[in-house]
Amino acid sequence: MSKPLILIVNDDGYEAKGLYALVEAAKDFGEVVVVVPDSVRSGMGHAITMNEPLRVKLYREEDGVKYYRTNGTPVDCVKLGQKVVLRGRKIDLVLSGINHGSNSSVSLIYSGTMAAAIEGSFEGSRAVGFSLLDYSPDADFTASVYYAKKIIPQLLKMKFPPYISLNINIPKGNVEDIQGIKITRQTKGYWEEDLEERVDCFGRPYYWLSGYLVDQDGKEDSCQWALTHNYISIQPVQVDLTAYQYMDNFKFLEE
Amino acid sequence: MSKPLILIVNDDGYEAKGLYALVEAAKDFGEVVVVVPDSVRSGMGHAITMNEPLRVKLYREEDGVKYYRTNGTPVDCVKLGQKVVLRGRKIDLVLSGINHGSNSSVSLIYSGTMAAAIEGSFEGSRAVGFSLLDYSPDADFTASVYYAKKIIPQLLKMKFPPYISLNINIPKGNVEDIQGIKITRQTKGYWEEDLEERVDCFGRPYYWLSGYLVDQDGKEDSCQWALTHNYISIQPVQVDLTAYQYMDNFKFLEE
Repeated sequence: MSKPLILIVNDDGYEAKGLYALVEAAKDFGEVVVVVPDSVRSGMGHAITMNEPLRVKLYREEDGVKYYRTNGTPVDCVKLGQKVVLRGRKIDLVLSGINHGSNSSVSLIYSGTMAAAIEGSFEGSRAVGFSLLDYSPDADFTASVYYAKKIIPQLLKMKFPPYISLNINIPKGNVEDIQGIKITRQTKGYWEEDLEERVDCFGRPYYWLSGYLVDQDGKEDSCQWALTHNYISIQPVQVDLTAYQYMDNFKFLEE
Repeated sequence: MSKPLILIVNDDGYEAKGLYALVEAAKDFGEVVVVVPDSVRSGMGHAITMNEPLRVKLYREEDGVKYYRTNGTPVDCVKLGQKVVLRGRKIDLVLSGINHGSNSSVSLIYSGTMAAAIEGSFEGSRAVGFSLLDYSPDADFTASVYYAKKIIPQLLKMKFPPYISLNINIPKGNVEDIQGIKITRQTKGYWEEDLEERVDCFGRPYYWLSGYLVDQDGKEDSCQWALTHNYISIQPVQVDLTAYQYMDNFKFLEE
């Protein structure tokens, strides 16, 4: 039996520590190929590159793992991996991350990491995004790797439903700090922006976008609750954005 | 009673014909303020700008409408509109578009137009993306403006459910070609990519991303069906990506 084929992508770029942590977690379970952006592309959501040409190049080969980098977005990495690097070979598992920072609650829709995982689910691969709740470039991925090594072989044994990916968030801390795993739903919330005004050397104003997550949920089955209580949050994610429960509210427009 | 405050954004940039069509459709119904990208930013999904400073500047004032442009993404336009240009004033309606091209089926998740509408829904505004099924820069927006003028005042009279926006797609054609309006759900489908390999002047390969939508649905209540049959498709869109129906499939990971 041939080894599973695993495509690893990310949004933090080819130098990110989280990328090498994910390779470490995955490499014993299959043939691993890496396709990642050549710079930091976080907060890119589901962006694709349509107005400029894409490049992709092999930059490293180590322990049987081939590493490619591209000028594209995280979602482009998946498309380039499938079509150009792997030339249409059947991919058993697309892994994205390990992201430096949380993708809980509404952060999911801004996330390049999770957009790449969602994209991976479109062609029938199992697809999973991993995020560690630590934004530091030098974050400690020991516990993340430990749990990813437990989760990945279990996922490879199962069949994913069509168009479904997993959003896995891991709390900061040591292996023994983590209380377990919870299957969660997306926390209701939004980002409250701070757009701080500064003035450049020429007297012109500019703004830095930052902000913080406002949790409007707080319930025990939400991802934020799990993470706050030191559980790993695993969330099945879909692509259908239809608000079925509110279709009737707008039926009057058909008149 | 004060006039409704309407923020208009887009992803095709400040020169797009669709922008001016949307201003024409909206300007009789309230105070209109425009904040749009200074270049074409389609296919940007829910991208935000975190690694460079944002600029925003007034570039035009006409018929009581103020037009601002920014180096940011479509989602940044909403944030800048809310926080910088309108300084936190309550926005009654965020309109995005009119997009040159379809945002039906899975195109919704790649769409900067719809990402901006979704972002608009986060702060309690009514939020709507309009798209015309014509990619041409010189597309004819006559029928789109006609229907937008019918729809906008109806929406201003109602309350939107929290975190809900509308994805409105309009078929190509004249006013009399359009058969009516249907409230639809997102068509199951995916983009089949073409990554054509070319070689540059230095002998190095590069790739252009293009493709076509594969409709895996075909049912009468889907957006693609409505559009193919010359109906305007209106779809309520939500932000919660949790695949509730598949949470049990992954419960075994909690063990």
